[in-house]
Amino acid sequence: MKVGILGSGSVGRTLAAKVSRLVGQEVGIGTRDVAQLMSPKASAPNEPEAFATWHSRYPQVRVGSFSDIATWAEVVFNATNGAGTLAALRSAGRDALSGKVIIDVANPLDFSRGFPPSLLVVNTDSLAEQIQRELPDSRVVKSLNTVPAGLMVDPAGLAGGDHHIFVSGNDPGAKGEVITILRDWFGWTHIIDLGDITSARGTEMYLALWVRLLGAVGGRPFNVRVVVNDGEGS
Amino acid sequence: MKVGILGSGSVGRTLAAKVSRLVGQEVGIGTRDVAQLMSPKASAPNEPEAFATWHSRYPQVRVGSFSDIATWAEVVFNATNGAGTLAALRSAGRDALSGKVIIDVANPLDFSRGFPPSLLVVNTDSLAEQIQRELPDSRVVKSLNTVPAGLMVDPAGLAGGDHHIFVSGNDPGAKGEVITILRDWFGWTHIIDLGDITSARGTEMYLALWVRLLGAVGGRPFNVRVVVNDGEGS
Repeated sequence: MKVGILGSGSVGRTLAAKVSRLVGQEVGIGTRDVAQLMSPKASAPNEPEAFATWHSRYPQVRVGSFSDIATWAEVVFNATNGAGTLAALRSAGRDALSGKVIIDVANPLDFSRGFPPSLLVVNTDSLAEQIQRELPDSRVVKSLNTVPAGLMVDPAGLAGGDHHIFVSGNDPGAKGEVITILRDWFGWTHIIDLGDITSARGTEMYLALWVRLLGAVGGRPFNVRVVVNDGEGS
Repeated sequence: MKVGILGSGSVGRTLAAKVSRLVGQEVGIGTRDVAQLMSPKASAPNEPEAFATWHSRYPQVRVGSFSDIATWAEVVFNATNGAGTLAALRSAGRDALSGKVIIDVANPLDFSRGFPPSLLVVNTDSLAEQIQRELPDSRVVKSLNTVPAGLMVDPAGLAGGDHHIFVSGNDPGAKGEVITILRDWFGWTHIIDLGDITSARGTEMYLALWVRLLGAVGGRPFNVRVVVNDGEGS
């Protein structure tokens, strides 16, 4: 499968590395300005190394504009910065993404007031809903935004995988495809379908708790397990 | 200890029953209109029985105005409806609550657009912060708002208590007193201090995920456990 990943930061790189090397799918990373991204001198402020250095270890990963990769891909991860997601998707193009499953792993974090961040969209709307409105012909599924990049692709690395990930989306078929990806590519075994795309408000707003928990656990990777008594009637 | 509980709904009743009967403390319930509350005909829309019927089983529980109970109590639970909390606390009085620990278990839920609810205050503020600003001489600690009433007072009833509760507040001494109450009165063993009162934004905003999870687990009682690998450095 041709897997497009929009965004070249740590989340995009982690997804690309896993899907291209371990899962063995064709992967392309989409970016705003390919020449700038591939410049050996370019280094993003939050990345440990220049993209070109990273890419030298993953030369099989195609690199192109948002539009090139969106057109080429059969399924697309949105791993852009939440503040830039809508601009990136407009650049990718509604037609290029028409009919395709978009797995939105981004969070609309607002660091303009420092740490901890607040949210750019919240309460009666969400980034995932904004994306679905922007791309009405695409099938948006929110997932993976509640864990750091390393856990997204390796849930078994934490407590043997005994913790939960969530999916939200309007299209049951798209959610089924994403659940298959989560399970078969990344190894998620505990997956909860929260409902339609408006339920993405829940996982995005959870970030306000997540950033405090991160401090409370001393910055270690963590996730939550939903605990229900066995055998209770539903 | 004289324990005041502001609010006579299911959360207030559950706290009062536990603290008066099993913990053995003196308990008073504060309400807006005592005569109306004690009327045998009065029934709140979401309660299974009239308050007077409930109270006939717990006659040891004092019932008074918000002001009476706030003045009498040594520690206070805010178990009012989040939409009415500030009015209730103004009625209780800043002087009556001065210096006292207030355990805020309420959530600022807005059901005006139906279910699932949104939040009345969110993102860069929280109900707990509003309370602390309204009562600058009191020591506000947010806790227990992430679980239903039955679990608040009986965490062992779910998975043997192997799940987490959170505390947020500006006063370390007050948080220590609340942690003692959570542990010794209710049996909580997994308690995470999230930080100052602004961290209550996290647990209040988590309600947006909570209401979706409630649907996903078929309405059964649930909570979350924070999962971190053993032995990892912080």
